[in-house]
Amino acid sequence: MRQDQRAYNEIRPIKITRNFIKYAEGSCLIEMGNTKVIVTATIDDKVPPFKKGSGEGWITAEYSMLPRATQQRNVRDINKLRLSGRSHEIQRLIGRALRAGINFKALGERVIIIDCDVIQADGGTRTASITGGFIAMFDACKKLYDEKIIENFPVTDFVAAVSVGICDGVEMLDLCFEEDSKAAVDMNLVMNDKGEFIEIQGTAEGAPFSWEQFQKLLELGKQGIQKIIEVQKEVLGQDCELVGSVPKDEKTSRCDQE
Amino acid sequence: MRQDQRAYNEIRPIKITRNFIKYAEGSCLIEMGNTKVIVTATIDDKVPPFKKGSGEGWITAEYSMLPRATQQRNVRDINKLRLSGRSHEIQRLIGRALRAGINFKALGERVIIIDCDVIQADGGTRTASITGGFIAMFDACKKLYDEKIIENFPVTDFVAAVSVGICDGVEMLDLCFEEDSKAAVDMNLVMNDKGEFIEIQGTAEGAPFSWEQFQKLLELGKQGIQKIIEVQKEVLGQDCELVGSVPKDEKTSRCDQE
Amino acid sequence: MRQDQRAYNEIRPIKITRNFIKYAEGSCLIEMGNTKVIVTATIDDKVPPFKKGSGEGWITAEYSMLPRATQQRNVRDINKLRLSGRSHEIQRLIGRALRAGINFKALGERVIIIDCDVIQADGGTRTASITGGFIAMFDACKKLYDEKIIENFPVTDFVAAVSVGICDGVEMLDLCFEEDSKAAVDMNLVMNDKGEFIEIQGTAEGAPFSWEQFQKLLELGKQGIQKIIEVQKEVLGQDCELVGSVPKDEKTSRCDQE
Amino acid sequence: MRQDQRAYNEIRPIKITRNFIKYAEGSCLIEMGNTKVIVTATIDDKVPPFKKGSGEGWITAEYSMLPRATQQRNVRDINKLRLSGRSHEIQRLIGRALRAGINFKALGERVIIIDCDVIQADGGTRTASITGGFIAMFDACKKLYDEKIIENFPVTDFVAAVSVGICDGVEMLDLCFEEDSKAAVDMNLVMNDKGEFIEIQGTAEGAPFSWEQFQKLLELGKQGIQKIIEVQKEVLGQDCELVGSVPKDEKTSRCDQE
Amino acid sequence: MRQDQRAYNEIRPIKITRNFIKYAEGSCLIEMGNTKVIVTATIDDKVPPFKKGSGEGWITAEYSMLPRATQQRNVRDINKLRLSGRSHEIQRLIGRALRAGINFKALGERVIIIDCDVIQADGGTRTASITGGFIAMFDACKKLYDEKIIENFPVTDFVAAVSVGICDGVEMLDLCFEEDSKAAVDMNLVMNDKGEFIEIQGTAEGAPFSWEQFQKLLELGKQGIQKIIEVQKEVLGQDCELVGSVPKDEKTSRCDQE
Amino acid sequence: MRQDQRAYNEIRPIKITRNFIKYAEGSCLIEMGNTKVIVTATIDDKVPPFKKGSGEGWITAEYSMLPRATQQRNVRDINKLRLSGRSHEIQRLIGRALRAGINFKALGERVIIIDCDVIQADGGTRTASITGGFIAMFDACKKLYDEKIIENFPVTDFVAAVSVGICDGVEMLDLCFEEDSKAAVDMNLVMNDKGEFIEIQGTAEGAPFSWEQFQKLLELGKQGIQKIIEVQKEVLGQDCELVGSVPKDEKTSRCDQE
Repeated sequence: MRQDQRAYNEIRPIKITRNFIKYAEGSCLIEMGNTKVIVTATIDDKVPPFKKGSGEGWITAEYSMLPRATQQRNVRDINKLRLSGRSHEIQRLIGRALRAGINFKALGERVIIIDCDVIQADGGTRTASITGGFIAMFDACKKLYDEKIIENFPVTDFVAAVSVGICDGVEMLDLCFEEDSKAAVDMNLVMNDKGEFIEIQGTAEGAPFSWEQFQKLLELGKQGIQKIIEVQKEVLGQDCELVGSVPKDEKTSRCDQE
Repeated sequence: MRQDQRAYNEIRPIKITRNFIKYAEGSCLIEMGNTKVIVTATIDDKVPPFKKGSGEGWITAEYSMLPRATQQRNVRDINKLRLSGRSHEIQRLIGRALRAGINFKALGERVIIIDCDVIQADGGTRTASITGGFIAMFDACKKLYDEKIIENFPVTDFVAAVSVGICDGVEMLDLCFEEDSKAAVDMNLVMNDKGEFIEIQGTAEGAPFSWEQFQKLLELGKQGIQKIIEVQKEVLGQDCELVGSVPKDEKTSRCDQE
Repeated sequence: MRQDQRAYNEIRPIKITRNFIKYAEGSCLIEMGNTKVIVTATIDDKVPPFKKGSGEGWITAEYSMLPRATQQRNVRDINKLRLSGRSHEIQRLIGRALRAGINFKALGERVIIIDCDVIQADGGTRTASITGGFIAMFDACKKLYDEKIIENFPVTDFVAAVSVGICDGVEMLDLCFEEDSKAAVDMNLVMNDKGEFIEIQGTAEGAPFSWEQFQKLLELGKQGIQKIIEVQKEVLGQDCELVGSVPKDEKTSRCDQE
Repeated sequence: MRQDQRAYNEIRPIKITRNFIKYAEGSCLIEMGNTKVIVTATIDDKVPPFKKGSGEGWITAEYSMLPRATQQRNVRDINKLRLSGRSHEIQRLIGRALRAGINFKALGERVIIIDCDVIQADGGTRTASITGGFIAMFDACKKLYDEKIIENFPVTDFVAAVSVGICDGVEMLDLCFEEDSKAAVDMNLVMNDKGEFIEIQGTAEGAPFSWEQFQKLLELGKQGIQKIIEVQKEVLGQDCELVGSVPKDEKTSRCDQE
Repeated sequence: MRQDQRAYNEIRPIKITRNFIKYAEGSCLIEMGNTKVIVTATIDDKVPPFKKGSGEGWITAEYSMLPRATQQRNVRDINKLRLSGRSHEIQRLIGRALRAGINFKALGERVIIIDCDVIQADGGTRTASITGGFIAMFDACKKLYDEKIIENFPVTDFVAAVSVGICDGVEMLDLCFEEDSKAAVDMNLVMNDKGEFIEIQGTAEGAPFSWEQFQKLLELGKQGIQKIIEVQKEVLGQDCELVGSVPKDEKTSRCDQE
Repeated sequence: MRQDQRAYNEIRPIKITRNFIKYAEGSCLIEMGNTKVIVTATIDDKVPPFKKGSGEGWITAEYSMLPRATQQRNVRDINKLRLSGRSHEIQRLIGRALRAGINFKALGERVIIIDCDVIQADGGTRTASITGGFIAMFDACKKLYDEKIIENFPVTDFVAAVSVGICDGVEMLDLCFEEDSKAAVDMNLVMNDKGEFIEIQGTAEGAPFSWEQFQKLLELGKQGIQKIIEVQKEVLGQDCELVGSVPKDEKTSRCDQE
């Protein structure tokens, strides 16, 4: 039994409040247990240089935590004049993950900026940001589509994420902060609704892990993501049908220089 | 009649959700119409240099807006490597305002940091931050008091704020963003529950104003603040009785170098 | 009697040396007692984005202190990589104040940058900067007018400023540093030559003030500003007649995003 | 056949020049095909705050590229006043990877700083940095050990890394820049000499991948790392025997706040 | 004949106003033709790390120009978030030059900070800063000596500086801005009152120069510096006798890491 | 006899590896004793503002040291958010020196950026950067010339540099770090192959020097530079003949605002 009475393969209760912020083109508040993230999607006309004139769009993300999202207050980035390495790493991950669910031609030459601001952090903020970011991105696309600015709906796949880890020797799904702090192995998984992998990030500073442990972790994560995508589908209701009307672009759109 | 059907001397509906953030020593979500601010209070042992060894405490504030709190997305401060002048000005105001309601000796040699993060901005974000900041500061003091870390309750007066302005030639209370945008005169008032002034900031770039107009604005503001303090009292309930058990320190505690 | 033998309602000796800096389009050295500020006005063609194509101009200000303008040396902003909050707040005030005395259409689509560099600080540096800034702005406008680059003289009103405060329980005019340090209430007033208010900033961290005290302060300030505007008129001599040839623009020109 | 005549499961020629920089406690030049990285290890007494007084050490890493390591010149970070997100992400990875091969108690309360400076970049710079970083870290430890500053040799396991990817539909080992640019899936693996996983980072922006593809990639990577560790062993010669004299600390040493 | 009617070997009129800034331990306004620099000297207890515990002092300098010291307005360093390379280079020169005239043992373990702020720039601002810096440094030392904080007067030699150059093929002394702009060779000389060299900086981007030209330039500079030191002596009057009561420290005090 | 058995007028062994970096338009590794610098030359189309539309080019330089190029590790500039004053000064020197050997009209409206990255520092890194920078600049020009992008070869003169100093009372050529640390006088000379001076920088913080000492130092430096230019000629072989096909531009190209 885990500290919050969950089973080892059970995710925390998820709640997604769609359209949480009045002014954004898409937005939600995603709560995963005590982890709470405000996500907004902004449509912007300025594409990055490598997309100019291509007719194709781009997805980019920014991640930040309010100073008191955590047990100890964090000094704001602006007061240190540098973005924390952790935030930098996470926002790059969110961008890559969501780009895997979009057809850039269908989106047209524009950028969707996903802002993820953690207001309360109890583990799994990056995976919650991806899961909630998908909803905000979806709604921003829907706005473009409803206003007939774009012809085809550009979201090609559901994208969601979850963390797994090995804690006290046991593989567990969706770690809260306290579990995460003592985990020997920590892994973040991003997958689509076809059960394919978009991103795998597994780290084992303290206790390198074996092939068997790895397989168990992936299996746990896969189950978790399926449940999370069900929640996403519930939140979107009938709008779900729009997803996948065009396929993902064949050609990859990698950009390591971001 | 104003655009949202209010009378010229009517404030917008206020809602204060106390203890909004789990980890902070004090916190609330304050909503004033469509303006929404998350305020947290953090107790910190590091006082500024000019208070070291004095046995007295300090209140400081930081103010920021989420990128999509506004109709147009704002680039994050960290991406411009500079705190916006507007934020700088506002957070200094919030700090001064709340310091006017505290006895620094009773607080003891510690700092309360008030973090105000605007998640949706529809005018009056700085005054809402002060009003909500008072609640968060109160609860942080209460924590110290309940845990018997301090002997006397250090909050000496209720502190609240509101904006007034002249819009289409009419003096108005609690301007929303659209009204604020076309106002000829814009004024922010901070007062305590004794009806005394803590801060007055009136600006008239476009149309300098007369003595009579000024008096009308102050009168409007005074009424507004009385109503807001009533809401604060309601939110705090019985805890209100703690306020004023010690008087404000005689000696001033100004510090222009902050 | 005050420490420098002044009466409570007496300003310090003012001296304004017009055209102090050879290269600037307008400039002066303003001395108010021991407070000394070099002010220059620069004409620049690059208007801010919200004025582009409007045919209208803008006034902006920057404020700084030499490291040894004060009793203790201040580390330069560049060595802390951040503009001090105090400077930020002050330069925004100077810009707003001077914009209240100009017709932007008459100025045409250009910016006047007012640089205020305090070389010796003995209280009242921000109000001296506004008073001196008016002279530098006037001369920059005169240069444009004399060279027939603009048709109408854009300065609509004299603008001057002064500080007032409550010190040892007494309302006083034009505080020097020592008085300012122990003042319970500190107020800066900006007015025009019609006796109208442009900006009122009153702060009372230590001892909130009443309506009666407030009225006395305003009355003192009003008298002080009248005397200061007389000095400005003396300095400008016959050129004074140019002021007010066009009226202030009806429409306000507020811009909170600066 | 690949562009440089390698087989799909063949790594590029590796050359490690031990003690490349005269002044560093450990150093090497690692060349992997045309990718060249100078790695140095510095012993420093200042441990991070969370290690103070623990008697335990820490490993940290910094990664940078010379401006002309790449086909297009990159502006130096200092001229943009920000560390690139990519560098930030990579140096965090290098630190985590090398920490997995060290016993912090045996190292004692000191830090080894691993500096990785890419002088020529042809793909796989982060994995080469890890592989070369191991050698530099080893030699810094050896210096401490030879000088009898520490009693037990703290390196517990060989650590090496390699990239794998799916390129034109084929799984490939050790991608060069051109292959990497068109890869649909890009994965970096870090393992120890026991065949355990330390870090797995797989990304598929363009074409999410299946379980089978994933397994093939891991298999390829495992073989590559075995060969690379053989090279490390050859470079260290007899010194190899020192590795593993103490086991990895049971307790994990994770630190997400780095 | 030069543009301002000077002979080729004639310096511009110099005027040094001693004790120009009320609060500084030493200060002057130095005017050399139209070039005007405010120099202050501050005594500070914090010596740089390499002097801690040595019982010896240090001299350091900072140099800046007001935005409108020049014909075109310069953006302030703080708004570019970087000290200009030119200022950086100049302030290092000023520090080195003045350190050559001081006995660090006699000064004791403290720093004198020389702040040079150019208010009007017409060529030769760095040399004027050195010449004026000597006076400010002298007066700061005198304050320490008069207050009996130090026993021996630490200034060992007069230090002054001047520029020379080749302009239209003619060697000239003390170039003004216009001459400097078209000079083929530009040289700054710092010497002491014994006729010894402290610093020589000669640059010839456009037209490399010969041994003969070089000798002529040095001769011109030497004569100029002699005249400038006479002015320094006049300004200091009887106080001059204090200079040289202790000799320069034998041991050099170079520090390239500053 | 010097510590490394050299005569007082002997330079250290020089080795220049041409085309050291695969991707750069010009590059070398220059080794001067234990001092090692990687220099690259990049051709860029963006000229500085003062050259726009002139048809003329520009040379600019950047200088940096790897953290462990020195006995003590240096914190990276990016982690202090400021370019060190020393680097700033040095890179300005390198740019000026190399510009003295180029005809800007012949180069055409483009910039050559010289990147000097010191990988091991044993004194004389700035002079080695100039000497090696000449080779990289030459090769970048050659690439333009061979590809017939430019008609005339723009390099007009060989440019090389060396340090001299007075150490233990003896004038010495090409100081290593240990000699440099105890030198009373430190001088850097840049000359061309005609024996003309391009830059002279002599500093004597500790012991001002006389005319005679100065002449001896210049003589030593001149001999050293002649030998170094011989090495440059050997490295370039037959390509040497290209140098000087057009003369240096008559008009100077100074730019102090860089």
